[in-house]
Amino acid sequence: MANESEVISWIRSRARPARGLVIGIGDDAAAWKPAPGFDLLACCDLSVEDVHFRTQWAQPRQIGHKALAVTVSDVAAMGGVPLYGLVSMALPAGKPDDYYQQLLDGIFTLAERVGMQIIGGDTSASPGPLFLDTMVIGQCPSGRALSRSGAKPGDLIFVTGSLGASALGLYFLQRESNGAPDNPIPGSSSKKPGAEPEAPEQRSPVIESAQRSGRQKEQLASADAQATRATDTTDALSLARAHAIERHLMPEPQVEAGRLIGDSGLATAMIDISDGLSTDLGHIITESVAGAIVNAESIPISECVTAARSLGAPISPIELALHGGEEYELLFTAEPEQRQAVCDLLASIGLRVSCIGEIVREPVFKLNENGVLTDLTPSGFEHVF
Amino acid sequence: MANESEVISWIRSRARPARGLVIGIGDDAAAWKPAPGFDLLACCDLSVEDVHFRTQWAQPRQIGHKALAVTVSDVAAMGGVPLYGLVSMALPAGKPDDYYQQLLDGIFTLAERVGMQIIGGDTSASPGPLFLDTMVIGQCPSGRALSRSGAKPGDLIFVTGSLGASALGLYFLQRESNGAPDNPIPGSSSKKPGAEPEAPEQRSPVIESAQRSGRQKEQLASADAQATRATDTTDALSLARAHAIERHLMPEPQVEAGRLIGDSGLATAMIDISDGLSTDLGHIITESVAGAIVNAESIPISECVTAARSLGAPISPIELALHGGEEYELLFTAEPEQRQAVCDLLASIGLRVSCIGEIVREPVFKLNENGVLTDLTPSGFEHVF
Repeated sequence: MANESEVISWIRSRARPARGLVIGIGDDAAAWKPAPGFDLLACCDLSVEDVHFRTQWAQPRQIGHKALAVTVSDVAAMGGVPLYGLVSMALPAGKPDDYYQQLLDGIFTLAERVGMQIIGGDTSASPGPLFLDTMVIGQCPSGRALSRSGAKPGDLIFVTGSLGASALGLYFLQRESNGAPDNPIPGSSSKKPGAEPEAPEQRSPVIESAQRSGRQKEQLASADAQATRATDTTDALSLARAHAIERHLMPEPQVEAGRLIGDSGLATAMIDISDGLSTDLGHIITESVAGAIVNAESIPISECVTAARSLGAPISPIELALHGGEEYELLFTAEPEQRQAVCDLLASIGLRVSCIGEIVREPVFKLNENGVLTDLTPSGFEHVF
Repeated sequence: MANESEVISWIRSRARPARGLVIGIGDDAAAWKPAPGFDLLACCDLSVEDVHFRTQWAQPRQIGHKALAVTVSDVAAMGGVPLYGLVSMALPAGKPDDYYQQLLDGIFTLAERVGMQIIGGDTSASPGPLFLDTMVIGQCPSGRALSRSGAKPGDLIFVTGSLGASALGLYFLQRESNGAPDNPIPGSSSKKPGAEPEAPEQRSPVIESAQRSGRQKEQLASADAQATRATDTTDALSLARAHAIERHLMPEPQVEAGRLIGDSGLATAMIDISDGLSTDLGHIITESVAGAIVNAESIPISECVTAARSLGAPISPIELALHGGEEYELLFTAEPEQRQAVCDLLASIGLRVSCIGEIVREPVFKLNENGVLTDLTPSGFEHVF
């Protein structure tokens, strides 16, 4: 049990001065002095209980972290850096004493790490589910915001990091809740928990293993490599699971990569992978009025996904990588002569980047598997109400 | 029934180019070029079904209007003008076909009228109540943002317009839902519907009368004057009711007054009355580390409130004006030598302004009634969760 003024006091106690900020949390509005030479960016993302997350799957810190991470990722996808955040929360009664403080701690910890400041928000009771809305204000060099619409025929398509782990994590969480893996391939239709029947309130060993902290988390981060070395198949699968669930519950927005790509001027269009590679690349070609050919063998599949498959998990790695959402990797296009520059740029921060295909003039969307072209269908989740 | 892409298409069809806007709705984030010489403002406000509004009391257009109006009012209270808005909506299923389109129409109609543009947002299903979160970005001349903390001993306290009508409107709505006026004075503890037991799903003649449109609304706007002239007491009370409910469901943010006060540099502190005069003036003196004496006889009570009282409604006009929330008038302080300048400034846009008291050095908060000082207690609503 808590009340509004306690929550607001806690938030104000965590607030810090920030560059350009004139009036911070606690007034009718925050005020700041924009830096000359930059354009400003603004976006927001909802996180609704039993639609975007489940409280039985995620700790409050993880829920807070992810609620902000997905919006920070949108600013990164414009080639910008996050400056300020606002957080609106409608909070149901009946949570443990420090539940909302932990949730806010997840938000503030990420905000501090990516160099932004929480400057406002709103707090209300909720007669229904827990409801979060995060808004992020960012900036990018003037005229350099990277839209979805700038891809040109001949441009190459790049993606940072690897894909499929978040969807695999969701698959494990859902299987644990349902008792059995009814749907062996968690594709687009099942990647939002709200689309599924309510799962029973229980905490699984899988989730617990993903909720370790500190040094244990660092160990989990190398689970892919460990999984392949493990002599015990059960342990290896458990490590792959833990890594996948970590990727699903605690996604990392690609802030530094977004800034580098934006500042470099190398990319022609960019988006973050929130709905799945097929859907988000679909947005780029729709807005750019073009087509795309994706090379299946070039898609970077997360090692935990290939490990889980080789250890017997009934999943399709390529399907997870193509259609699984909530990856928050950056998907962007660049002229072919910039290929080496793109690779060098991201190598400078130790981030993997893969060239996965090409933008074409014709309005087609194809997957190239060993020279055979098949239609690629965006399979993103869509809310119905 | 609708789906996410239909709603987003409708929103994009209403979007218009706006000053400074580089990238509008439909990308990962919106981007704009800030104007030199201005500071930027940002704030957000939740509107949660059965906490902030009830769908059986308000039409969707009214819900949308008010959800944005309250946030625009916050920008006005900083002495700024609204530029851009973002709207997040978590939408329950089962509403009539055009329900959400009407709700959005309420948002866009107000946005266009106050000269701002909707540039982004997020849409989700809701497994519970209807959730809205509006975010407004505004601007004010550099260094001129009016905080709550600038009031100085000796400053006079001013309020625009008149007070009590919104609380009276809520009183009528609650009485109609409950069947009888159990609580004759809708003070702070009952001004948020969510704090009350769920009202039966019914539409009252009182609400219907407030939902007239066009010319009928203009007629309602002069209900105060008409009420005092009416020979039929029932008709006069009905007009007072309709005017009060209109004020409650369709509050008008004081955008022009906020801009004038901000640009003039006359005010030392400002806030909008969202929680009630006593609570919001309490915020000013707390943040300004000062006290205040309010003169009861100077408080501008809405004519519909005095009319309703004289026609037999069991209400206390001064209590409604002191503690009733959701007025969205501007409450501000200015040095005493600026009194005439303040009156002239607001007279220039035909807006009533009243000097209701004085800021004092001592940390007291008093009401002066005919020379008798009594403690004034902020009685604002506080969410508990």
